[in-house]
Amino acid sequence: MSVSASSSSPSPVPVLSEKQVDNLLAAKEDEHGGVIVEMSTTQPPMDPIVFTSLLKASILHWKQQGKRGVWIKLPIELVNLIEPVVKEGFYYHHAEPKHLMLVHWIPETTNTLPANASHRVGIGAFVMNENGEVLVVQEKSGKFQGTGIWKFPTGVVDEGEDICSAAVREVKEETGIDTKFVEILAFRQSHKSFFDKSDLFFMCMLQPLSFNIQMQEREIEAAQWMSFEEYASQEFVQKHDLLRYIAKLCIAKRDGKYSGFSPVPTITSFSNKPSNLYFNTKDFDFNSS
Amino acid sequence: MSVSASSSSPSPVPVLSEKQVDNLLAAKEDEHGGVIVEMSTTQPPMDPIVFTSLLKASILHWKQQGKRGVWIKLPIELVNLIEPVVKEGFYYHHAEPKHLMLVHWIPETTNTLPANASHRVGIGAFVMNENGEVLVVQEKSGKFQGTGIWKFPTGVVDEGEDICSAAVREVKEETGIDTKFVEILAFRQSHKSFFDKSDLFFMCMLQPLSFNIQMQEREIEAAQWMSFEEYASQEFVQKHDLLRYIAKLCIAKRDGKYSGFSPVPTITSFSNKPSNLYFNTKDFDFNSS
Repeated sequence: MSVSASSSSPSPVPVLSEKQVDNLLAAKEDEHGGVIVEMSTTQPPMDPIVFTSLLKASILHWKQQGKRGVWIKLPIELVNLIEPVVKEGFYYHHAEPKHLMLVHWIPETTNTLPANASHRVGIGAFVMNENGEVLVVQEKSGKFQGTGIWKFPTGVVDEGEDICSAAVREVKEETGIDTKFVEILAFRQSHKSFFDKSDLFFMCMLQPLSFNIQMQEREIEAAQWMSFEEYASQEFVQKHDLLRYIAKLCIAKRDGKYSGFSPVPTITSFSNKPSNLYFNTKDFDFNSS
Repeated sequence: MSVSASSSSPSPVPVLSEKQVDNLLAAKEDEHGGVIVEMSTTQPPMDPIVFTSLLKASILHWKQQGKRGVWIKLPIELVNLIEPVVKEGFYYHHAEPKHLMLVHWIPETTNTLPANASHRVGIGAFVMNENGEVLVVQEKSGKFQGTGIWKFPTGVVDEGEDICSAAVREVKEETGIDTKFVEILAFRQSHKSFFDKSDLFFMCMLQPLSFNIQMQEREIEAAQWMSFEEYASQEFVQKHDLLRYIAKLCIAKRDGKYSGFSPVPTITSFSNKPSNLYFNTKDFDFNSS
């Protein structure tokens, strides 16, 4: 099955001999009756026409085996193999900077493939010291650059990161302050945050464990402890009802009059993976039957 | 700039004359100092080599203009243009079934491009009638197929959909029951839910507004109102601490001893878009200053 890599004129797909049918793409079975092919850049480069033959034979094989979803993961270095995969009936499932995942549903039945990720997740951090001062920053870039607005530290939850860990990490990165996660005071869901994707923003309360600010130069213009009243009286806070609500929740929390959601570690049912369940633990009787 | 579409031998990139520099890819400016090119399938098909020339000239132009992020959205029909885009230094940002979004950061400075979506969002629905019976279903597919397990209705939040709307929609779709959203009792974050993506699952309480079940044949094997005690005593619920916690929260809520988070519509600050802020409204004094 040697085909010149330089030829790009369309050629009829060769009928594979029995021997050649043995020559299939390496695939792992998944837990849902499907298979996943992870193409690697460490293998010798593959000609798109050779690849197409292998793919056609493999799909036939998987079909005969009664497989359902077929996944193909292509690193960006193998960008030349995307077109042959799409021509065999695959579509895109998701992409990360350095790879594209394509999928093809073999059966006639409605596909039960998992939906793509739809939300980005961010955090904001309410950190108050014993003097009733709150930790605030000015950002070097973005829409608040140069505005002089003091805001709570915020950031994006990394892939695979717990919300509570992300809040502690972002505060440490931006200000050098060590903290302990207390609870989620509120969260906001918004849409079309970037292209058609949505956004979940979790407003977290953290307890400071250190007090000397060491500002991150790359992202942060300024950082300080500021009286809560001074923070809340900024025109920027007063004129946005979202920020006014959050400021009121912070005050109610400070005064012991508010309960948010705290993380409780559980084993995710069915998959045996640890995960956090966040709920109002103050209202919850852990000892009830 | 006419180049034969059938030639695929590498050719040196032509130096564009001043006249040709006018011949650029159509782009819209975004709000962050960047541009977005949305390639369309309604345009005449474009040869990859012609496209490469246009792209090179366009990048030069955007660079001179001081543009930052350059986005190119390619519908799956234009799969043959992905390779030329990647060769010009773009990488993948995200993909949906029928398109791929690529991005290139022009400046020398650290890129401030938005992170890709990292989480899928799902809901579960606790719906109890006045007899203390809870709405439960058996699923036709997935890991609960054929197990005889009765579970709360669950589903995935659609792109751009509010969590509270998704809960009402899923209950209606699966059981025909009309409901009113009450509050979020708890949520769970778990990781590596599919590939490297994470999952946020919101357990919602809904109040039933109708009572005659009309089951959806496609996804649901059976649906009924069941005494809460019977639901909670299933071995499946008892042996998973996550489900035991949720059952206890439901009982505490039924007995008026628990407060979750309710949605309050706000205008998203800075962008003037409506969004919901979810918090413990029972603990919140809306009239305080």
